[in-house]
Amino acid sequence: MQRKILYIEPVVSNMAASWKEYLSKFISPETELEVTSLPEGPRHLEYYSYGSLVVPQLLKIIRKAERENFDGAIIGCFYDPGLREAREIAEQLVVTAPAEASMHIASTLGQRFSIIVTENKTVPLMRENVIKYGFLDHLASFRALGMGVLELQVDPEETKRRIVRAAEQAIEQDGAEVIILGCTIQFGFYQELQGTLRVPVIDVACAALNYAEFLIDLKDKHGWYFNKKNEYLPPPREEIEAWKLSELF
Amino acid sequence: MQRKILYIEPVVSNMAASWKEYLSKFISPETELEVTSLPEGPRHLEYYSYGSLVVPQLLKIIRKAERENFDGAIIGCFYDPGLREAREIAEQLVVTAPAEASMHIASTLGQRFSIIVTENKTVPLMRENVIKYGFLDHLASFRALGMGVLELQVDPEETKRRIVRAAEQAIEQDGAEVIILGCTIQFGFYQELQGTLRVPVIDVACAALNYAEFLIDLKDKHGWYFNKKNEYLPPPREEIEAWKLSELF
Amino acid sequence: MQRKILYIEPVVSNMAASWKEYLSKFISPETELEVTSLPEGPRHLEYYSYGSLVVPQLLKIIRKAERENFDGAIIGCFYDPGLREAREIAEQLVVTAPAEASMHIASTLGQRFSIIVTENKTVPLMRENVIKYGFLDHLASFRALGMGVLELQVDPEETKRRIVRAAEQAIEQDGAEVIILGCTIQFGFYQELQGTLRVPVIDVACAALNYAEFLIDLKDKHGWYFNKKNEYLPPPREEIEAWKLSELF
Amino acid sequence: MQRKILYIEPVVSNMAASWKEYLSKFISPETELEVTSLPEGPRHLEYYSYGSLVVPQLLKIIRKAERENFDGAIIGCFYDPGLREAREIAEQLVVTAPAEASMHIASTLGQRFSIIVTENKTVPLMRENVIKYGFLDHLASFRALGMGVLELQVDPEETKRRIVRAAEQAIEQDGAEVIILGCTIQFGFYQELQGTLRVPVIDVACAALNYAEFLIDLKDKHGWYFNKKNEYLPPPREEIEAWKLSELF
Amino acid sequence: MQRKILYIEPVVSNMAASWKEYLSKFISPETELEVTSLPEGPRHLEYYSYGSLVVPQLLKIIRKAERENFDGAIIGCFYDPGLREAREIAEQLVVTAPAEASMHIASTLGQRFSIIVTENKTVPLMRENVIKYGFLDHLASFRALGMGVLELQVDPEETKRRIVRAAEQAIEQDGAEVIILGCTIQFGFYQELQGTLRVPVIDVACAALNYAEFLIDLKDKHGWYFNKKNEYLPPPREEIEAWKLSELF
Amino acid sequence: MQRKILYIEPVVSNMAASWKEYLSKFISPETELEVTSLPEGPRHLEYYSYGSLVVPQLLKIIRKAERENFDGAIIGCFYDPGLREAREIAEQLVVTAPAEASMHIASTLGQRFSIIVTENKTVPLMRENVIKYGFLDHLASFRALGMGVLELQVDPEETKRRIVRAAEQAIEQDGAEVIILGCTIQFGFYQELQGTLRVPVIDVACAALNYAEFLIDLKDKHGWYFNKKNEYLPPPREEIEAWKLSELF
Repeated sequence: MQRKILYIEPVVSNMAASWKEYLSKFISPETELEVTSLPEGPRHLEYYSYGSLVVPQLLKIIRKAERENFDGAIIGCFYDPGLREAREIAEQLVVTAPAEASMHIASTLGQRFSIIVTENKTVPLMRENVIKYGFLDHLASFRALGMGVLELQVDPEETKRRIVRAAEQAIEQDGAEVIILGCTIQFGFYQELQGTLRVPVIDVACAALNYAEFLIDLKDKHGWYFNKKNEYLPPPREEIEAWKLSELF
Repeated sequence: MQRKILYIEPVVSNMAASWKEYLSKFISPETELEVTSLPEGPRHLEYYSYGSLVVPQLLKIIRKAERENFDGAIIGCFYDPGLREAREIAEQLVVTAPAEASMHIASTLGQRFSIIVTENKTVPLMRENVIKYGFLDHLASFRALGMGVLELQVDPEETKRRIVRAAEQAIEQDGAEVIILGCTIQFGFYQELQGTLRVPVIDVACAALNYAEFLIDLKDKHGWYFNKKNEYLPPPREEIEAWKLSELF
Repeated sequence: MQRKILYIEPVVSNMAASWKEYLSKFISPETELEVTSLPEGPRHLEYYSYGSLVVPQLLKIIRKAERENFDGAIIGCFYDPGLREAREIAEQLVVTAPAEASMHIASTLGQRFSIIVTENKTVPLMRENVIKYGFLDHLASFRALGMGVLELQVDPEETKRRIVRAAEQAIEQDGAEVIILGCTIQFGFYQELQGTLRVPVIDVACAALNYAEFLIDLKDKHGWYFNKKNEYLPPPREEIEAWKLSELF
Repeated sequence: MQRKILYIEPVVSNMAASWKEYLSKFISPETELEVTSLPEGPRHLEYYSYGSLVVPQLLKIIRKAERENFDGAIIGCFYDPGLREAREIAEQLVVTAPAEASMHIASTLGQRFSIIVTENKTVPLMRENVIKYGFLDHLASFRALGMGVLELQVDPEETKRRIVRAAEQAIEQDGAEVIILGCTIQFGFYQELQGTLRVPVIDVACAALNYAEFLIDLKDKHGWYFNKKNEYLPPPREEIEAWKLSELF
Repeated sequence: MQRKILYIEPVVSNMAASWKEYLSKFISPETELEVTSLPEGPRHLEYYSYGSLVVPQLLKIIRKAERENFDGAIIGCFYDPGLREAREIAEQLVVTAPAEASMHIASTLGQRFSIIVTENKTVPLMRENVIKYGFLDHLASFRALGMGVLELQVDPEETKRRIVRAAEQAIEQDGAEVIILGCTIQFGFYQELQGTLRVPVIDVACAALNYAEFLIDLKDKHGWYFNKKNEYLPPPREEIEAWKLSELF
Repeated sequence: MQRKILYIEPVVSNMAASWKEYLSKFISPETELEVTSLPEGPRHLEYYSYGSLVVPQLLKIIRKAERENFDGAIIGCFYDPGLREAREIAEQLVVTAPAEASMHIASTLGQRFSIIVTENKTVPLMRENVIKYGFLDHLASFRALGMGVLELQVDPEETKRRIVRAAEQAIEQDGAEVIILGCTIQFGFYQELQGTLRVPVIDVACAALNYAEFLIDLKDKHGWYFNKKNEYLPPPREEIEAWKLSELF
C-alpha cells in the first residue's frame, strides 16, 4: 500500500529540505513524504494570534493536498493549529498534528507525562489542548525552559542542560513516566535525551508522522475516518461558491 | 464615564443597523455603541472552518478599533471565535464574547444551565468552549432544534414551538435552572420565552454587551485587565514589522 | 437608573464608615451605597462555626433590605456565608458575595488564578467554594501567609512582604495569571501590588461591589434574576408564619 | 465498650420517641441512644434558608451533648446541615450525618448509586453535597418523586408506587447499583423496597446511626478523630468568651 | 521491517484458526500473525473473577512469546485483562489490548464515542477502564443489548437489529460521533454497520491488531517503549527464582 | 452478635501469628479473627504481575472461607488485589481491603489525605485505586520514602525518620489533613506517629479490619450487601462446573 503524506510547517521557514531529510528516516518504505511551509506569515506560533493568522493559508494547503491525492497531512506545530478545521474540510485526507499524536502515544507508554516547553507563555495554550484531548489526568506537569523558541539555538549546550534538568525534575518531582519534548534543540536530540533519562522521550514531529501513517492505514483497511456525518461534516459546496469562500482558503 | 463599544458580527451580514437598534435598548446612557460586520466571508459560522476563516479579518477590526479608541469590542458569535487571539493583540481594548459572558451569568443565576442550539453538528464546538471556560459541571445539557441557522426563519411559529419544547425538556428532564439561547428567532424573543418558562433565559448577544460594559468598568476603576505579562502578552512589534504580519491582520 | 446597594459586613465591626468611604470610590454615580455590620457575634469568620452563627442575623438584614427597597446586597466576607440562603429568601433583591464575584472576574482575565489566604486553616473552606462555583480547573493554588486575620496589622510591612512573596511564588511556581487577594492589609493595597506584579490583583470587596451593580443591571434590563421556580424558590409564607420563623431571621 | 449517642432531629418534631424506638432496633447492645429535636424553628429543611436557621440551635445541642459526655451525635437530616461546623466545635464528640454516611456505604456496595428525592427543588442542595464528599463519579442519578416532604403521607400507597418506579428507573435507565432513599414513607420501608428491587436500598437514618458507631469505635481504638490541628481546629475559648458567642450557640 | 505478532484469546476457544484467517486480512505484508488461546479456563470473561483466573496463564504465554522473539502480543478481550501485568513482565515485547486501542482511535475520529455492550453487568468493569485510560469526558454512553455473549448467536438477525438500534440511539440521543463495538455478531459485521450508520464503527479486535503494529513501529524507529524505569519496571529475576514464581506464570 | 473474620495476607509470609496477635487488640469482643497467608507465591506485591499471580489462590481462600461460615474476609494488602473478584464470587461473605477502607475513613476525618508509600514505582498502581474509588479530589499527594518494602527493616530508625519527614511535608506543603500509612515499619507505629504529628494517621490493616466489622454489621442489621443483581452477580454454577473452573480457584 502506497501512502503520500504532506508535512506542513505552518510557518515561514527555510527548513523544509532539512525536515524532509530528517523525517524520511522514520517513514515506512511505502510512504512518500513531502514537506512544505508557508509563503508568508510568522516564523513561529508562540502567540495565539500568530496561530490564527496561519490557519486560512493552512486550509488552502490542505485543500490543494487533497486535490493532489495526498493520503495524509500533518500540521507540524505543537499547538495543533487548525486541526479541527482541516479535518472538517477534508474529504478523504487524513489530518493529524503533533500534540494529539504525542499525547496518545505517551499515555499508552506510561500513566502520566510531562511536557517540556519553551516559556510559561505557551502553557495556557497547550493546557487547553491537553484538556480538549482528554488527557488532563495523565498530565504530570509542564516544565518551562525560560527561553523563547528562537533563543534555543543561541547557546545549544546551555539549552540542552536546561532540557535535561527540566526533564529530570518532571520525573523525580512530578511523577512523569514519559517526557514529551514540546520544544527541541536539534533533529534527533530526543534519542540522546532518552538514553540519558531511560524513560520514553517523545519527539512530537516524529509522533505526528507515524500517527498519520497509522490513521491512513486504519482508513484504508477499515474505512475508519473522521465522523463526516456530524462533527466534521464539511461545509456545503453551494455556500462555498455562493460566498466565494475559496478565495479565502 | 464614557464608554465606546464595538459590536462585531464576525460574518457578512446586512443586519448591522438592526443589531444597533436592538442592542441600544440595553446599554447604559454612557455607552456609545457601533456595530460592524465583515466585508467578505461566510454568513454564519456553523463550521469549524468558517470560524477560522474570519479570525484574521476580525483581528484587523480589533486593531482598528483600538486605534480609534474604542474601550471594548464584542465578537458577536456564540462560538466566541478569535476571542483569545483578540485579547492577546489588544493593548487597552476590552474584548469579550457571547458564550463566555452568558455562561458566567447563567452559572450565577442557577446551579446548572442548558444551551439550546440549532443542530447537533454545533455541539462539539460548543462543548469544547464549555470545558475551556470551566463550566462542564454547570452544564445540564445541550438541546438541539434540528434546524440550521438559516432555516430558523422559514416557519417562525414552528421554530418557536421547537425552542419552547427544547427548553421545557431541559428544565424538566435535564435539571436546567437557566436556559442559554444559543440560537434565536427574533430580537427580544428571550423575554417572551422567559415569561413562559419562568426561569432566566439568556440572550447571548445582550449578555456579551453588558459583560463588556462590566469589564470596561473594572478596567477603569481598578486597572483589572487581561494578564498581559504572560498569557495575553502581545507579539513584539519588531516581529510584526519584520514579518509583515500587519498585512495579514 | 438608580441603584441602592447594601454592603453587609457579616461580623461585629467598627469599620462601616471606613468601608463606605473606601467602596464609594468605585461605585457608579447612579449607585447609592450603605454599609452595615452585625450587632453581635464574632469579629471574623475564620471558623466554620462562626460563619454559621451569623447567617440568621444576616438573613434578617437581607429581609429588612428588601423591605427598604434596596436593589442589591453584598455579603462582605470571602467565605460567602449565607449566599445561597440569602438568594432563596430574596424576592427582588440581588445578592452576591466576594468569592463568587472575584472568581468569575479572575477566570475571565486569565486562565488560572491563585488565592492568597491568611492561614492554611481557611483552605478547606475556600476550596469547597472553588469547587462549588466550578472553578477548580482554573485554580492554580492557594498560598497562605501563615498569619491570622487579626495579626495582619501587627507588623504591616512584614505582612506586605509576605503577600508579595506569596503572590510571586503563585505566579512563578504555580502558573497563576491572576491573583485573588483573599486577605488584605489596607484599603487599596491591591493596586500597589498590581503595580509591582504587573498581573491583575483582585480586591474581593471591590469585585463583589461591581458584580452586584452588574447583576442589578441585568435584572433591570433583561429580567435576569435567580431561578425562583426551583433552586431559589423561597419558603412559603404560610410556613414562615405558622412556624414563627420570622423571629429567627 | 459503652457508647452514648445522640440522634438530633434538626427540626421541630413530635417524633422523637418514635425515632428512638425505630433506631434502637439497629444499635449495638453497648450503645445507648437518645433522640432530641429542636424547641423552635422549621419542621422540615427543604429550603436552604431553613437549613441555616437551625444550625445555631444545633450547635448548642452539640455543645451540650459534649458536656454530657455523649460519644457521638448524628445530625438527622439528609442535607447534613451544620456538619462541618459541629465537627469544628466538637472536642471529643464524634459527629456524622446521613448523606455522608449513606454515600460512603453505597459506594462500597456498588459502583454507582441513585438518590431518590422528594422534589427537584432539593437536587441542587444535595448535588453540592455529593460533589463536596467526592462522590460525583459514583452518582448515577437523582430521581424526584414530585412530592413535598409533607405530602408523602397524604396517600401512602401512591407514594410507595412512585418510590418503586423511581428506583426501578434509576436501576434500569441510569445504571444505579445501589439506591439511597433520600426520603421515605414509613420506618423500615427500605427493607420492603430492598426485597422488591433486589439491590441494596439505604435508609439514611440507619446509615448515619451505624456510621456513628463505627467512627466512635475508630476513635476509641485508634485515636482516629477529625483533624483538630487545622481543618477542624476549634475557635479559641478567649474569642468565644470575649465576644459572648456562647449566647449564640 | 518484519514483525511477529501473537494474538491471544484469553479464553478456552476453538476459534483460533478463524481469528487468524479473519485478522490476517488487516495486517501489513511485513507482519506475521499467530493466534493462540488458553488450554483451560473460562470461555468468556463477563465476570470479574473469570478475568482474574486467566491472567497467570496469560502471563505464561507472554513470557513464552518473548522467548520466541515475538515483537508484539495482543490480549484479545475487551476488558483488557492483565494488560498492565503483561507490560510489566515484558522486556522487549509490545503488548496492547482492544479497549485501550479502540478508545485511542475513537477519540481521534470524533469527540465522543459510545460503547455497545452485551449486558449491563459488564458496564462497571468497562467504565473503570474508560476512566483508567482517561477517556471519561469522551464517553457519550454505554448501550447494552440485554443479551449475554453466548446468546448473541441464538438469533443473529435479532442480535443485529438490537445492535443497530443501540448504535442509533447512541448517535441520536447520546451524541456519539463514533461507535465502539464492544461485542459483535460475526467477523466483519462492523463494516456493514458502518455502512448503515455512516459514522466510524470500531471493531475492537482489529483496532488492537493495528495498534500493536503501530506501537511496534514506534519502538523500532524511536525506541519508544513502556516506561521500564519505574511504572513497568519488571520484578527482579532473583525474586522470581528464589520464590519459584516461574511455576506460577 | 458473633462475627468470624478471616484476615488474608495475600503473600507467602511467616507473620500470621504476629498479625493475629496485633490485630486482635482492635477487634470487638464478638469478633473471632483468623489470619492466613498463601502457601506459595511472592512475598510482597510491589509489582502489578505479583498482584495478579496471587488472585486465583486468594479466590480459593475466599471460597473456602465462605464454606466455613466466615462472615467477613480482608485482603490484607494496600493494593486491594482481587477485591472486585472476591466480592463477585462471594455469596454471603463480606469482603473488604485496606486501600478502600482507609480512604473512606480518611476522607471522613479531613478534606484531603496524603499516602506515604515505599517507592515511586507503586504510585501508578495506587493512583488508579484512588481514582477507581472516587477519591482523587481528596488526595493531597503521594509521598515516597525511596525504599523497597523489604528494605524498611534494614535501618528502622532511618526508616522512621523518613516517614516522619514525608508526613510533615505532606501536611505542610501538600495540605494533607490526614495521613494514610501505605507502608509501615512496625506494628502500632501509626500511634507513635499520630502523637508526633497531631493529625490522624491511618494504619491500613486496622482500617480494613474495623471496616469489615462495620460492613458485616450493616449486612446483619439491614441486609445491605454488595449488589448481587448486576455488578457483583456471581458466575453461574453450571459454567463453573462445565468448565472445571473450581480447579483454578
